[in-house]
This record gives sequence, structure tokens and C-alpha cells, in this order.
Amino acid sequence: MASPTAILLVSCPDQKGLVAKLANFIYANGGNILHADQHRDPEAGLFLSRIEWELEGFNLPREIIGPAFQAIAQPLGADWQLHFSATVPRLSIWVSHQDHCLLDLLWRHRAGELQAEMPLVISNHNHLRPIAEQFGIDFHHLPVTKDNKPLQEAQQLQLLRDYRIDLVVLAKYMQVLSPQFLQEFSPVINIHHSFLPAFMGANPYQRAYQRGVKIIGATAHYVTSDLDEGPIIEQDVVRISHRDDVQELIRKGKDVERMVLARAVRLHVQNRALVYGNRTVVFA
Amino acid sequence: MASPTAILLVSCPDQKGLVAKLANFIYANGGNILHADQHRDPEAGLFLSRIEWELEGFNLPREIIGPAFQAIAQPLGADWQLHFSATVPRLSIWVSHQDHCLLDLLWRHRAGELQAEMPLVISNHNHLRPIAEQFGIDFHHLPVTKDNKPLQEAQQLQLLRDYRIDLVVLAKYMQVLSPQFLQEFSPVINIHHSFLPAFMGANPYQRAYQRGVKIIGATAHYVTSDLDEGPIIEQDVVRISHRDDVQELIRKGKDVERMVLARAVRLHVQNRALVYGNRTVVFA
Amino acid sequence: MASPTAILLVSCPDQKGLVAKLANFIYANGGNILHADQHRDPEAGLFLSRIEWELEGFNLPREIIGPAFQAIAQPLGADWQLHFSATVPRLSIWVSHQDHCLLDLLWRHRAGELQAEMPLVISNHNHLRPIAEQFGIDFHHLPVTKDNKPLQEAQQLQLLRDYRIDLVVLAKYMQVLSPQFLQEFSPVINIHHSFLPAFMGANPYQRAYQRGVKIIGATAHYVTSDLDEGPIIEQDVVRISHRDDVQELIRKGKDVERMVLARAVRLHVQNRALVYGNRTVVFA
Amino acid sequence: MASPTAILLVSCPDQKGLVAKLANFIYANGGNILHADQHRDPEAGLFLSRIEWELEGFNLPREIIGPAFQAIAQPLGADWQLHFSATVPRLSIWVSHQDHCLLDLLWRHRAGELQAEMPLVISNHNHLRPIAEQFGIDFHHLPVTKDNKPLQEAQQLQLLRDYRIDLVVLAKYMQVLSPQFLQEFSPVINIHHSFLPAFMGANPYQRAYQRGVKIIGATAHYVTSDLDEGPIIEQDVVRISHRDDVQELIRKGKDVERMVLARAVRLHVQNRALVYGNRTVVFA
Repeated sequence: MASPTAILLVSCPDQKGLVAKLANFIYANGGNILHADQHRDPEAGLFLSRIEWELEGFNLPREIIGPAFQAIAQPLGADWQLHFSATVPRLSIWVSHQDHCLLDLLWRHRAGELQAEMPLVISNHNHLRPIAEQFGIDFHHLPVTKDNKPLQEAQQLQLLRDYRIDLVVLAKYMQVLSPQFLQEFSPVINIHHSFLPAFMGANPYQRAYQRGVKIIGATAHYVTSDLDEGPIIEQDVVRISHRDDVQELIRKGKDVERMVLARAVRLHVQNRALVYGNRTVVFA
Repeated sequence: MASPTAILLVSCPDQKGLVAKLANFIYANGGNILHADQHRDPEAGLFLSRIEWELEGFNLPREIIGPAFQAIAQPLGADWQLHFSATVPRLSIWVSHQDHCLLDLLWRHRAGELQAEMPLVISNHNHLRPIAEQFGIDFHHLPVTKDNKPLQEAQQLQLLRDYRIDLVVLAKYMQVLSPQFLQEFSPVINIHHSFLPAFMGANPYQRAYQRGVKIIGATAHYVTSDLDEGPIIEQDVVRISHRDDVQELIRKGKDVERMVLARAVRLHVQNRALVYGNRTVVFA
Repeated sequence: MASPTAILLVSCPDQKGLVAKLANFIYANGGNILHADQHRDPEAGLFLSRIEWELEGFNLPREIIGPAFQAIAQPLGADWQLHFSATVPRLSIWVSHQDHCLLDLLWRHRAGELQAEMPLVISNHNHLRPIAEQFGIDFHHLPVTKDNKPLQEAQQLQLLRDYRIDLVVLAKYMQVLSPQFLQEFSPVINIHHSFLPAFMGANPYQRAYQRGVKIIGATAHYVTSDLDEGPIIEQDVVRISHRDDVQELIRKGKDVERMVLARAVRLHVQNRALVYGNRTVVFA
Repeated sequence: MASPTAILLVSCPDQKGLVAKLANFIYANGGNILHADQHRDPEAGLFLSRIEWELEGFNLPREIIGPAFQAIAQPLGADWQLHFSATVPRLSIWVSHQDHCLLDLLWRHRAGELQAEMPLVISNHNHLRPIAEQFGIDFHHLPVTKDNKPLQEAQQLQLLRDYRIDLVVLAKYMQVLSPQFLQEFSPVINIHHSFLPAFMGANPYQRAYQRGVKIIGATAHYVTSDLDEGPIIEQDVVRISHRDDVQELIRKGKDVERMVLARAVRLHVQNRALVYGNRTVVFA
């Protein structure tokens, strides 16, 4: 429905004139800015920006935009990414036993909420295969044990290459990825079933119940080699009461998990989540 | 603590190059942009922006900034406001019987949350006078009846002039302002004790109870001559249950009212709420 | 997993000894109360209660419990309902174009969150048939026009009888049920895509956008012959901003709609929602 | 306004007939139950209940109710507390530098929201004295150092005895109470400025900022000798964004802190929070 756009994500040391320089680059080449958002982190001395403009009427061909912008970015010491709305990212969803996040993502995709392709589901178990097949998606069963993990990660990486995957979404995939894997592939988004940093690690609902909290939550974050420590994209919570046992926490938590994961994936796919240090700027 | 800044609020017909033109105006004169936020409303064909920059190092003297910007704004057909962080707005708080919004605003002011002066409280009743006096604020008692309303509004307008008031905050002031008054003075912010447009008019908590809603709310809006119909700045809600009678709704609602009003006043004072049509853009 | 239980929902004029009389009825017959919840509405002079107890070890056979309790209820002037957890209610879901509420209910049912049978989907359009069939549920297409409405409602009622339906769930069914229909069949739960009583009737998201609200919501209620005026079971909201156009409101609203409807259906199925006057007590 | 009531809080090993036995005790003595709430924790094998009834028309004099109920409680192995609405608890509020929780509690007290007496403020600093005096409350300045802590705690305990204090509220009192103190006096309610168990200990807002969370919170809990580990009464959260620096987290957090603490104190004062193990049942 929308006309094609380009998106620049920029981060660089803060200095005068950055907004003007970015805007001029687009305006001078005939572009119409649709969205421009900036953030300054005075403590880090950083300027971060997301600019989206229409390609219709823009004078630079797509393949020239990057090199042309690099001439501006280099003297500023800027890191930058260039994305095109027409280039739809390819996602691989990884699951274990629970289906709620998988189903939610597939359904939102079908409803047009996620501008992405979802050609590949990977699981360490076999029983969610029917769901993938029902949506016409390839399903690969790669059981993981302590012994075969390096081998299976090699397989997983090969699949990611074969399917030209841009983003892995751990949609309740109950295995830890090795640092080696994460060096080979990124980004990876995970949904953790607690309000991080509370209840990092295993069994957060059981521990939330034991602690007697009155609210539980879920956290979507980029995966790093520090378990549950990566940059947070989105969090949300739900109120519970003393009447809720662990099973009820799990049931109520599932709704929060799928909402939070879906929002995080959407923010990523729209190039709205920009990582710096161990934090994200979310240009929402 | 912060160095003095200037803030431009701009709205104009959407066209190419607006971000660049605004940013260049500031950059060309040596300014350092701290915050820049834009919004496009495609349906209305409007571009709206808030830009804040440091005056330190800016080459234009304050009194020249407006005329200089007008040279840019006129060909764009732009409406604009120029504010300086050093020019603290002067607020008058109007109340009737209930003290919770008044106290909350005075306390936040004392805590440094509201960069404003609050020299004048006006009430149609006398019994909140001690609170105003306790905070060292002038209190004027202007009882309003059907007969004396025009006279009293003239008095109120005179007080607003005498105290050089920039913003009137109706903090549970239970009188309707006449269209004549609103022609003479604006802006006025009101807190309505319902989740508008539900329960417009009188006795919203009683009607919420009668309707059996499960959530109640409050709405802060700019006052127009259409009662409870002005542009909404902020809303929030709180969950209730069948155990809550009207008294409990009032008690729970008071917390929402004071939070919502305080946020709206803060947004206004920071020049973050921009009205267009019957809506607001909130650059938060 | 749980052992079978019986549930009494009681409402009667308030008077001394009601808790004791209800509890004694169960205790005297050897029952173990699992949950007991009461509410008094002093204004209405009503006492309302929900009591759930284990049938294991209860001395009265199921068919005798009702008559035995009636001997206690009659002198109290009590209305009461008796439910058995083993008697699973049969639901018919009605839809038009949108699939999100239908899918959510079917999926929760499959996940074991809704102790109900769902044998029948009715729609005035044909295109959600594949979803029903995918879950192995009968789908009946009954297009409704102004002319054929009485005829189609007769058909619908016949289907409800044929399938022995206990509850109709309007999961975004965009037709109004006639008073005649509602006299023949109840209860019916509807999801309305606004925070009632705001935006009753058609196109609530468009009207919410026009009004410039900062929060939107959804409401699940029992259907009465007054459109959107029936007793509210559950409501919830989501925050929006000026960046959200009508399409975004619809997208965000869909998540609230399906959550709110699912919670309301679950409360009904667990016999936790008790109507009195135009209100509900929700024993959650 | 309300007629005087009695409240029983009971916890005992779960067994048949408990609701009946409690209700009969009140009914047999002519009492009218206003509220009855129960909870069973199957894992702990516990039954917990709160019953409130009108004393008007109740046949037992107040001083006999306890002994009479003990005859029922003993064979059940029940722990119980008996409270009278007419016996208003006496609170001591303890503060350090920040005034927002203190002001909020004093103001709610004055508004009639807290049925309690508040005769005593204790602080390790002197500068909130004017607030206490403004509300006509005694203020005692007891500076605490590592060396004088045992001495000052002895003074504090003496003050609690002198003022016949029933509950200590740590309203941002930035000192840890010793285990010896807690053996001498309880209960104590604390407000912790994080969403426990996240960010236990010092500087939670700084650490929340460093971690890059998207939501912050506050927790009111009973104080035990394990710092920040006591039974949680109430929690709430507020959404933040990358634009919020530590100062903004502190500002937004203050609103959550005072709401959460006020709700927790109100629940305690109304005898609605019942501790068992390291958890609370909140009969709200």
C-alpha cells in the first residue's frame, strides 16, 4: 500500500549540525522525509537517529545511496545502517514445546502485521511440526544434547545460510546458544518469561510464585553470550494475585510473552530498535 | 541546572525539505539541537515539529530569533511559536471543593518538577484558602452564581492580567467557563474525572457505577467552548471491581486525576503539546 | 486433572446468616468447599455468592442437590444456579470478516484454557470457513440481509438447538441480534471494540481517532436488546499516540479485543460472572 | 460513617467445614457478616480467611469474642487475629531525605483515606521536620551512624513504646533495621524503589538505567531481617523510554512509590494483608 522508502539508522559522537547534515543529504537529493527521530545520550556523548524517506522522486539510485552517505558519515565518525522497505527481512522462528509464540507470530504475519518472510522453523523437538506445515513453512527438527550441540549448531548455521535468514527469533526455544554460534550469526531476539533482570535463568514462574510477587512480566531482548543479559527491546507485565498458582502464572504469562515478543519483532523488522552499549533506543 | 534553550513549535502544510530547512536555520546560526521531533499527518496534509536547541553559542540574540525565523516560515505557510526555557510560564490554579489536584501541583512545583510560577489560586469557595496560604500563594475567592457570573468572569480576567498569567489550570473547578471568557483568555487546561468521551458532563463516577464499568479514568484537555470536547492532552485509567461503590470510585479516581493533570500541565509547560484541529500532538 | 466440583451461584435479599446457611448446606452433606466468595450490594440490598465444592465425598447425588438446595433457597427468596464442572458448556462462535477473536478462542480451547466444547461456528460471510474446518468445527454460512433476517434468525436458533448450544459468543459478528432472537436464546457475549460507554455503535476506532483520545479499549458484555448497553463482564485498554492512524488503532485494538473476549468467555465458562440489574459481579 | 465491625483473620490446616464453622460462630451469636473471603493454598495445605461482621446486634461483648473464638480455633489448630474497626492503629512514619511518601501518607490521612493515627515521625535527618510540624505531628531526629546505631535503635524502640505505635512505615527511610530491632518490634512496612526481586539493595534507579529496562516499579513489603526479601504486599510499575535518564526514572518512580506504599498501608490498616510463609494473601 505504501510507496517504497529508505531508512537510515545512524549513531555517532554528538556534535553540532547533525540533524541538518542528515536532513540535507536527503533533501538535496530530492527525498521527502516521512519520519525523523533523534536521541542524544549526553552521558555517552552519542547522537542516534532514524530517518525514513520516500524513494519516489529520490535522485540517487539505491545502490548509490550507501556510498554517497558514507562520504557524509565518515568525517562524523558515524556508524550507520541503510534499509529499504521493499527488502523484506527473512525470519527463522525457533521453538521447543510451547506453541503460543510461534502461532502468534505466524498469525500476525498472515494478518499483514509483520512485513517479513518466515520460511523456516527450527525446533529441538518434533511435535510443533504440524503447525509449521499448516502455515506452509519448512520445519527442521534438530534435537540438541550436550554431546551433539556443536554439530547441531553447525547444521543450524547451514540452514540459516541456505534460507538466507536475516533474523532468528527464539520463540520459547529452551536451549542456550553458544558464544560460537552468536559470533557466526546475529541478530537473535529471545523472549524471556520474566521481567528481567528479575528471575534470570530457569523456571522464572516457579520462582515468581515462591517469591510471592504481585506482578509478573516478560522481556524481549537481543541475545548476547551473557544469558538473559542482552539489550532489552520490550517488556510488559500482568497483575496476579495470591489465587494464582504456578499454572495460572504460566497461563497469564503466555499472553504477555506473545505480545511482548510480537512487538519486539515488529520493531526490529521496521528498523526501529537501535542497539548501543547494552541498551536499545526504540524509535516507536 | 540545564543551560538555557529555545524551543520552536511549528505546523505547516507538508512539503519536501522541511526538516532540512528547520535544522539549517539553527545550524547556520551556530545552534546545537538537543531535541528534534516531527510528525506528519497525511490525512490533514500537515507537518508538525518541535525543535529545542541550546542558546549558548547561538549567534542570534533572542529578540531577533523570531523575526529571522519568520522569513523562513512565511513562504512555507507555517504557524509557529517560539519559547525560551528561561521564560518560566505563570500559572493560575482554579479550584472548588476538592484539594487533591491543587496539592499535587503545588507539591510537584516545590519538588522542582514543574518549571513554572504559581502566583495565583482562584476559587468559587473559600475553604481551600489555607492550602494556598501555606504555600505562600495569593488566594482569591470569587463565588459564582447564575446572576453574577459575567461580573465575576470580568474580575477573573482582571486578575489574570494583573498577575500576568500564561495558563489557567482548572484543578477540579466545578464551574463552566463562558465562551466570552475563553475568547478573552487561553489556554486553559481542565481535568475531567472520566475517560472521555465516556461520561461527559456531571457526575461521571455515579454514572460509571450505574453503568457497571470495570475501569475508570480521567482526562486532561484544553478547554474550548464545547464542554468536555476540547483537545485531549493526556488520559489514564484504573481498574475497579464490583466491590467498589461510588465512594471508592471517587477515591481511586482522585489518584488518576492528579497524575493525569500533573502530566498534562508538565507537557504544556515544556511546550510539548501542540494543538491542531481538535487533537494534540504530544512530543514526549 | 482436578476432581469434579459443584458450583452454586446465589443471589438473594441480604439478611443475617446467609454465609452460614450456604456453608452448612455443603458441610452437613459432607462437602469440602474449595472456593467461597461473597458480595453485598447495600444499595440494592442484595447478597451474592459463588461457592464451589468437591463432589467426592459429598453425600447427595447430583440430581438431588438442586431440589435439596431449593428447600433452603425458597424461604430466603434466593435465585440460584447449580453447575457441575464435569458438565462442559457448549459454545457457538459467531463471526463476520475478522478472524483474530475466532482464532484466539480456538487456540486457547486447544491449549486447554477454556473448559468448553466449541462445535459450531456461524457466520454471515463464508471466508472464515477454512479456519473452522482446520480446527474440525462445523461452519454454517447464513448471510443476513434486511429482508431475510427473521428467516435467518430462525435458522440460527434451530442450529443452536440442534447443537445443544449453551452460550453464543459474538467474536466480531457485525450484525445486531433482534429482540425476538434474544428472547429465544441467551446468554450471548459480545466483544465491542471500544471502551464502553465511549463510542457505542458503529466505527469506534474511526471515532476514537477523530476525537483524539490517548487510550483505546475493548469491552466484553452480555447482549441485551439495548445495543452495547448490556452488563459488562470485562474491559481493558491500550495506550496510543498521535502517531497512530486509524489502521494502527485497529491493529492495536485487535490485541485488546481478543484478550478481553477470552477473559470474559473464561469467566462465564467457569461460572464466575453473575448478572444482577445491568451489572455483573465477577468472582475472579 | 460505618457502624463498628469486628474482623477475624484466620489461618489453619485445611479441612472440611471451616467456612461453616467460622460463619456459624458469627451467626449463632447474632452477627451480620459484611465481608467473607477465603483462600486455600493446596500446596501448603492451608486455609486462610478474613471475615468482617457488624458488632451492632452481636451478642458477645468485645472482650469475650477472642476467648469464645479460641474455643473453636484450638481444635482446628488455627492461628487468628481479632481486630475492631473502632480500634484505630497508630502509625509511625520514618523518613530520610525524600518527602513524597511522607506527604502522600499525611495527605491521605487528612483526606480520610487511612483509618489510622499518625502521631510520630522519626528521621535520621532533620530537614523534613517542617512537614511534620505543619501537620501537627511530633518529629524526632535520631541521626544514625555505624557507631551509634544500637543506641539509636534503643531510642527508637522507646519512642514506639511511648507513642504506643502499632505499625512502622519506612517511607523512604534509607537505613537498614537490625535483626535485634525487628525482634523487638513488628510489623514494619517498607517501600523499595524497584520491582523486586529486580534491583535489590542500593541505587535501583541507577541500575535500572544501566540495564536498559523499559519499565520500572516499586514494591511495598513487610520488613524481615533479610533485606528486601520480606513478604510483598503490593507492587506497581510505570513505562519508561530511552529518553528517560536517571533523574527522570527517579521522578517517575516517585509517583509509583507513593501509590504503592499508600495502597499497602491501607491494606494493612484494614487488616486485609495476611502473611504466611514469605507471602501475603491480600483480601482486597
